[in-house]
Amino acid sequence: MLKALGMSPSLLISIYSKQNDTAAFAFSIFITCFVGYIMSKTKINKKKMIKAKEGLTIVAFGWILFSFFGALPFVISGSIPSFVDAFFETVSGITTTGATIITDIEVLPKGILFWRSFTHWIGGMGILVFTVAILPAMGVGSFQIFKAESPGPISDKIVPRIKDTARILYITYMAMTVLQIGLLWIGGMSLFESVLHTFGTVGTGGFSTRNASLGAFHSTYIHVVISIFMIMAGANFSLYYELYKGKWRDVLKNEELRLYLGIIVVSVILIAINMDISLYNNFGKSLEHSLFQVSSIISTTGYSTVNFDEWTTFSKGILFLLMFVGGCAGSTGGSIKSVRILVLLKLIKREITKIFHPRAVIAVKIGQRPVSTDILASIASFFALYIIIFSLGTIVISLEGIGLVSAASAVAATLGNVGPGFDFVGPTRTYSEFSAASKLLLSWFMLLGRLEIFTIFILFSPKFWKNEI
Amino acid sequence: MLKALGMSPSLLISIYSKQNDTAAFAFSIFITCFVGYIMSKTKINKKKMIKAKEGLTIVAFGWILFSFFGALPFVISGSIPSFVDAFFETVSGITTTGATIITDIEVLPKGILFWRSFTHWIGGMGILVFTVAILPAMGVGSFQIFKAESPGPISDKIVPRIKDTARILYITYMAMTVLQIGLLWIGGMSLFESVLHTFGTVGTGGFSTRNASLGAFHSTYIHVVISIFMIMAGANFSLYYELYKGKWRDVLKNEELRLYLGIIVVSVILIAINMDISLYNNFGKSLEHSLFQVSSIISTTGYSTVNFDEWTTFSKGILFLLMFVGGCAGSTGGSIKSVRILVLLKLIKREITKIFHPRAVIAVKIGQRPVSTDILASIASFFALYIIIFSLGTIVISLEGIGLVSAASAVAATLGNVGPGFDFVGPTRTYSEFSAASKLLLSWFMLLGRLEIFTIFILFSPKFWKNEI
Repeated sequence: MLKALGMSPSLLISIYSKQNDTAAFAFSIFITCFVGYIMSKTKINKKKMIKAKEGLTIVAFGWILFSFFGALPFVISGSIPSFVDAFFETVSGITTTGATIITDIEVLPKGILFWRSFTHWIGGMGILVFTVAILPAMGVGSFQIFKAESPGPISDKIVPRIKDTARILYITYMAMTVLQIGLLWIGGMSLFESVLHTFGTVGTGGFSTRNASLGAFHSTYIHVVISIFMIMAGANFSLYYELYKGKWRDVLKNEELRLYLGIIVVSVILIAINMDISLYNNFGKSLEHSLFQVSSIISTTGYSTVNFDEWTTFSKGILFLLMFVGGCAGSTGGSIKSVRILVLLKLIKREITKIFHPRAVIAVKIGQRPVSTDILASIASFFALYIIIFSLGTIVISLEGIGLVSAASAVAATLGNVGPGFDFVGPTRTYSEFSAASKLLLSWFMLLGRLEIFTIFILFSPKFWKNEI
Repeated sequence: MLKALGMSPSLLISIYSKQNDTAAFAFSIFITCFVGYIMSKTKINKKKMIKAKEGLTIVAFGWILFSFFGALPFVISGSIPSFVDAFFETVSGITTTGATIITDIEVLPKGILFWRSFTHWIGGMGILVFTVAILPAMGVGSFQIFKAESPGPISDKIVPRIKDTARILYITYMAMTVLQIGLLWIGGMSLFESVLHTFGTVGTGGFSTRNASLGAFHSTYIHVVISIFMIMAGANFSLYYELYKGKWRDVLKNEELRLYLGIIVVSVILIAINMDISLYNNFGKSLEHSLFQVSSIISTTGYSTVNFDEWTTFSKGILFLLMFVGGCAGSTGGSIKSVRILVLLKLIKREITKIFHPRAVIAVKIGQRPVSTDILASIASFFALYIIIFSLGTIVISLEGIGLVSAASAVAATLGNVGPGFDFVGPTRTYSEFSAASKLLLSWFMLLGRLEIFTIFILFSPKFWKNEI
């Protein structure tokens, strides 16, 4: 029912812009409300304590249900006639991926465009609350590292209770949204497009209102503003709360942030130099596009200012690699995430030291705090599982008869919630040419990546359904 | 000086076949002997105990020195005029990689061909002793798992002392060599080519005497014999000792062997079906080539019977993935190795169980024995480091201006000691078109992969040279 409420702005815009999608929204809201009402009256679980099992089931199915009902406006309005396509587009929206099957975005009615981008904004909010408030409270997954991340005893649990944490996240998210809309509007973008591109940025989604994405706006100002907000949306949101409390020293010392920004700086410079020499012959322009593309991929947004598929293998290689880095923990960004990369790098460093001191006990530390063996194992297995799913997924998708780079980047871009990939799924192409089966598999990868893999994975463990665990 | 002795058979063959490489060998042997003599007279280290540091330095530099002097016959005979090329070829030989820069192998004199393949055989023997006898004795690296691998208290340390272990390995290796030479000879291959292809097989190297590799021999018998020996060379050699002692039950229960064979069976069937439909339209033929190619890649040999670069993306994707699996621990195969994949899979399985039992302490077991936290951390960091080197290496190599698949497969094929890759480095192509800088980098990857990465890596740690560790 909350989601029906979420569709209301789309209805209003639809009525306001007098396009033919009004009935679609009215009908979709009605159906969604009706099902929501039925469900709220059905009391399945009468236990008062929500266990990890129930909690994860609710979250995972919540995301899937949203994708199912969220697809209704697309189908009913006729904007996306095929339900599989509409489902793919909605999953891509709510998981803040930004992979699209729409070949001509610019002909869509405004209400549909609004709804499409709005799913990014809801998805971004949802994932913040999920990873920052819900998962750690349930003691699940490697996001316990998030607790250990904030240095100092007071900021240990940003604000102890889930509710308060969620409220702070809402406010930060809202503030960032309003600020970016204003800055884009000042830059000459229409209010409607400013709002939609902001939804796609703060949620690190990537749906645009234009076929050429941000390449349609020939404004360095707009490109730089969006680059900065993409980087911000990919950073840990709890840091903004610390900044607000004046703890900027702690923020600057944050090791994950340093790694994240360090990777961005190095990548931007390398690509800028490479593209200056090989294509643009204009360092300013190379820097602008390099900054935009690097920020877009590492934050897993997926906007583009140019067809980066035409870049050199070197530059594309760096972007491909960034698809596996992703944003920070506690951001709206997806993929493996910088904190896990940081821990793995420290684990490698420790291993090298250990060769010479086989008996030494050396703790892997983030900030000043040691990371527990459990969390190390959790991060290592997440990384391994991510690589395994990526590899096997690529092989299955390659049955479409496309090249290895196309297949691998399609899987990396959906599993990492990035959006566009290379070649067959490059920034000027769409996912529309895939078979229905592949679209469903890629939708599944988007959900898997968004919900930190293990959450979804356990739902398919046979033991889970036999009540053995 | 031992290496000079190793060159002697080549000299004899050279004299026997009356080709123009006799002087090259005589001169190379003289130089090598001379330097060896100087070195044996120079007493650098007067300590009696060899510490891990010295031990690893000796091994790593031993391999590099061998590649340096082993390149002499190629250069002096004029078979490979460029020293960088000759160095690349020798590193490729001694690391049992099999990547070549020679575009026409068939014009080479027999002595050179013998020396080229003989480096595989020496390299295979060397790596067996290094990983099975030396590394575990020094308590270095994740090959400690090898000890835990053999079930039962008696076979715990195959044979306690390094010398005895080495002797058993020599005998097994020799027996396998003689057996394969005989089987190939019976199959109609000339004795000379039987010997050279056997060197390339038991060492999981991949140098052939023909430009078309094993595709030049149109004999299903020969293809199947080599397939079986490649699989055998990629299996743990201590298992043959157990078989010899009649413990076949233990061998069958070996989890790493089961995973290794399981991956082979699944891959062979999938590729055979895929290639039957897409290209050959003959299941027998598809199965033969599929079996050969899968065995060749997973054992990191690198022979080919067909130009598998023309296969479908699906089949190539599977082969690409197998490049990262590699042989078993204690084999002549390279890459990540099946035992590490096995441990990572078990780590993932434990992680899923742990979500529901956050407080449970569950050990990861291989056979009946728990794997220690140290070894788990060692394996996880090896895997992460391997993936990181592969990724960054691909980006650097892509500066050659080749495609992403070419660059990625060149790095995967050298780091994993496989040999041929795809596209630019496909089975009908060579590494000759790379720049000298890239050839040196790829040589470095071959050494890095062969010596289990950490061994080489620490030599470049600044602390190492400052005597801080």
